[in-house]
Amino acid sequence: MEKSPPLVSPTPEYDYSISSDQIKLVRNALQSNNDKVVRDLIAGLHAADVADIIEQLPHAQRIHFVDLLRPDFDPEILVALDEYIRDEVVHLLTSKELASAITNLQSDDAVAVYDDLDHELQQQVLADISESDRQSLESSLDYEEESAGRLMLREMIVAPDIWTIGQVIDSFESTEDLPEELSQVFIVDEKNYPIGSVPLSRLLQLPRRTRIDSIMDRDLKIIPVSMSQEDLAFYFQQYSLTAVPVVEAGGQLMGMITASQMISVIQAETEKDLMGLGRVSEPTLAKPVVELSLKRLRWLIVTFINTLLASSVIAHFEVEIQKIVALAVLMPIVASMGGNSGMQAVTVTVCALAQRDLRSGQIFHAVYKEIGISLINSFILASLLSCSVTFIYKDGVLGFVLGAALMFNMIWAGLAGTLFPVILDRLGFDPAIGSGPLLTTTTDVLGFLAFLGLATIFLF
Amino acid sequence: MEKSPPLVSPTPEYDYSISSDQIKLVRNALQSNNDKVVRDLIAGLHAADVADIIEQLPHAQRIHFVDLLRPDFDPEILVALDEYIRDEVVHLLTSKELASAITNLQSDDAVAVYDDLDHELQQQVLADISESDRQSLESSLDYEEESAGRLMLREMIVAPDIWTIGQVIDSFESTEDLPEELSQVFIVDEKNYPIGSVPLSRLLQLPRRTRIDSIMDRDLKIIPVSMSQEDLAFYFQQYSLTAVPVVEAGGQLMGMITASQMISVIQAETEKDLMGLGRVSEPTLAKPVVELSLKRLRWLIVTFINTLLASSVIAHFEVEIQKIVALAVLMPIVASMGGNSGMQAVTVTVCALAQRDLRSGQIFHAVYKEIGISLINSFILASLLSCSVTFIYKDGVLGFVLGAALMFNMIWAGLAGTLFPVILDRLGFDPAIGSGPLLTTTTDVLGFLAFLGLATIFLF
Repeated sequence: MEKSPPLVSPTPEYDYSISSDQIKLVRNALQSNNDKVVRDLIAGLHAADVADIIEQLPHAQRIHFVDLLRPDFDPEILVALDEYIRDEVVHLLTSKELASAITNLQSDDAVAVYDDLDHELQQQVLADISESDRQSLESSLDYEEESAGRLMLREMIVAPDIWTIGQVIDSFESTEDLPEELSQVFIVDEKNYPIGSVPLSRLLQLPRRTRIDSIMDRDLKIIPVSMSQEDLAFYFQQYSLTAVPVVEAGGQLMGMITASQMISVIQAETEKDLMGLGRVSEPTLAKPVVELSLKRLRWLIVTFINTLLASSVIAHFEVEIQKIVALAVLMPIVASMGGNSGMQAVTVTVCALAQRDLRSGQIFHAVYKEIGISLINSFILASLLSCSVTFIYKDGVLGFVLGAALMFNMIWAGLAGTLFPVILDRLGFDPAIGSGPLLTTTTDVLGFLAFLGLATIFLF
Repeated sequence: MEKSPPLVSPTPEYDYSISSDQIKLVRNALQSNNDKVVRDLIAGLHAADVADIIEQLPHAQRIHFVDLLRPDFDPEILVALDEYIRDEVVHLLTSKELASAITNLQSDDAVAVYDDLDHELQQQVLADISESDRQSLESSLDYEEESAGRLMLREMIVAPDIWTIGQVIDSFESTEDLPEELSQVFIVDEKNYPIGSVPLSRLLQLPRRTRIDSIMDRDLKIIPVSMSQEDLAFYFQQYSLTAVPVVEAGGQLMGMITASQMISVIQAETEKDLMGLGRVSEPTLAKPVVELSLKRLRWLIVTFINTLLASSVIAHFEVEIQKIVALAVLMPIVASMGGNSGMQAVTVTVCALAQRDLRSGQIFHAVYKEIGISLINSFILASLLSCSVTFIYKDGVLGFVLGAALMFNMIWAGLAGTLFPVILDRLGFDPAIGSGPLLTTTTDVLGFLAFLGLATIFLF
């Protein structure tokens, strides 16, 4: 019997992103100086993928590869590159090429690339661009780093409230370089204050003679240029925003920020918390080893001091440990369980703070819940541990002392794991960075102290 | 001398989000049954802010508050609520009210809310909605959770490639409920395969008679319904996408996903990594204490077994510790520094994996760098430590043994902290969740073993 052909056509194959095999092919072609093959391999590739290739090449091949890209260098490649590698690539371009790349970028990307250049390159670029581009670049840099003013797009459509839909649509024709993510037109009053927005789809659905202010949405979330990107990220999430108007101190409309711009910002902001909890400063291995080492060493020294403190606590009990060595065997359990359960509380609290879920009224509620969780979990683990130790060492008092110290330390960890991030946040420090070291220092010190102290009282 | 008036007008005040004071006012008004004041306080509030109020009310006040919202219940409130609280609120609504709320939501939000209902409520809702809404809900649920099929918006504009701009624009008039974030029109061929996209701004800039396929962008990133939201998050970041077409297995266009939808997805995906590294399952305190305790207990038991293993290593050296108690004092330093430096490597590796920065060719490079970092940092810390210990205990051999054990453990931590996440990822496990426990178990066990073992060899 012959097989009938399948009724459903097979799923078409789509290209998603560059594979490590493709990158290897490019490297091999570069190694054998086969420029034509390299060009064929990267033809039609997205700028972000070309940037990935550049990042993974050794220095010499990188120079060669950038040379091949040079005739029509896609400026988007600069945007997609890791900062550290970008710094190398911009020095491979002439200042004319760099100036033309920056001029051809959307205003937000141009600012980001220009801002990372060293002073000398910035001066060279400024000499090679038009007066208006120069002004727009320099005025963006007047705003603080990671503020709405730096992020905003200047390319947008703004319409006075007295216009009709027809007039708004006609103004599109005279505007070049509109961003692809444009989904809203902002409406301003005679003072250039934003007072409403109209989705483009609505412009297309209604008659041309309709007054624009009769169909605009009035519940705008207006963002001042000084707002931090952290706050912006919160508002985009909280209100599911698509685009917001950005205004300068006087209230005049200056630019807009869109959801697609916020994706990388939100990624960066959440990653900051992740890095803070993991006690590293940057999520990159692109820099030289020595530089990376020193950045991490700062954090390790904090841990180091922490462990020295804990050791000095243990040193106070040398006599007791010499008499009952089991104390040395069991003491790391108390410290370690306290540290781990405390980090659970820290993690949940840091997330809640990032999402503004911990308003002042809620903090007592959170502390109360964390203490409840600690009570239940420490009781279960302490019971298990007390029974096992009593059985193994045939010493009920030792079992009791260990269980009691464990419960004490885990309840402290729940309390401190909630309060430390909240307090740091109130004092203006980053709760993700400071809480971990503070917490583990106290859970180590208090853990050893509670266990060895109780043991001294009850066993000697 | 009179003061001259300021030249610049003061910055206008903007409302950003609800404050804890406002929430307290609502609570007080509810407590004194002052319905009119409550209504005034929440008039004009964004649904997300109303949801925040609901989340922070005690149970009895929540019932009362939902009753007040009932006359014109904003369905967006359901979308913004924490899942656990939403489950309570949907049970306060009649099935008719719930059905009408779901019908009035955008398709992606409707699916998300409907999906979380218990089976009984789902059946009641299905009985109260139109046949077409029912079909669209049920077909969305056929796709896997956290897949593109579940996330996609069905409201969009699709145009055959043979149309002119004029025809596309006219088709807007007949389409209701277009999402505000609409910025692109997708172009399909005669089989309904997506072949291009056109930004709305371009439709508005060119003459009506222009053929749509002559102005469309052809480099579409086409997403199959089965793609995971994790992959989607990566593509949106990698390619700075604004909107993507979603196709079913045969290749036909089914819906689209926009950047503003992805904001909450990306937030959730990065948070998952944060939670995994912090060893908690959920970033919420909204559930009852017992439920939260048990979820965290799972992780604590893993740590517990880890510490028991480490203790059993120490127990093997009881005789040696009794002779030289300094061993007990110093051993936590080796374990703790290994664990902490290893978690730095884990954090960086988990971030790199999430951003697909660790393709197979790069892994050796990463391991080599991490070992380099560990070498430098462990050498610095070991030198410091050896000197101090030699000075304090007047024992150069003890100082050497401690330094050597510290270096060994930190280098192992750098190696394991890179390889564990990579291996777990290759095996299909979540690297953020498994790597921490695996790493600390080995750094504790190896830390104690290396220090106490070397001490036994050199000091006895």
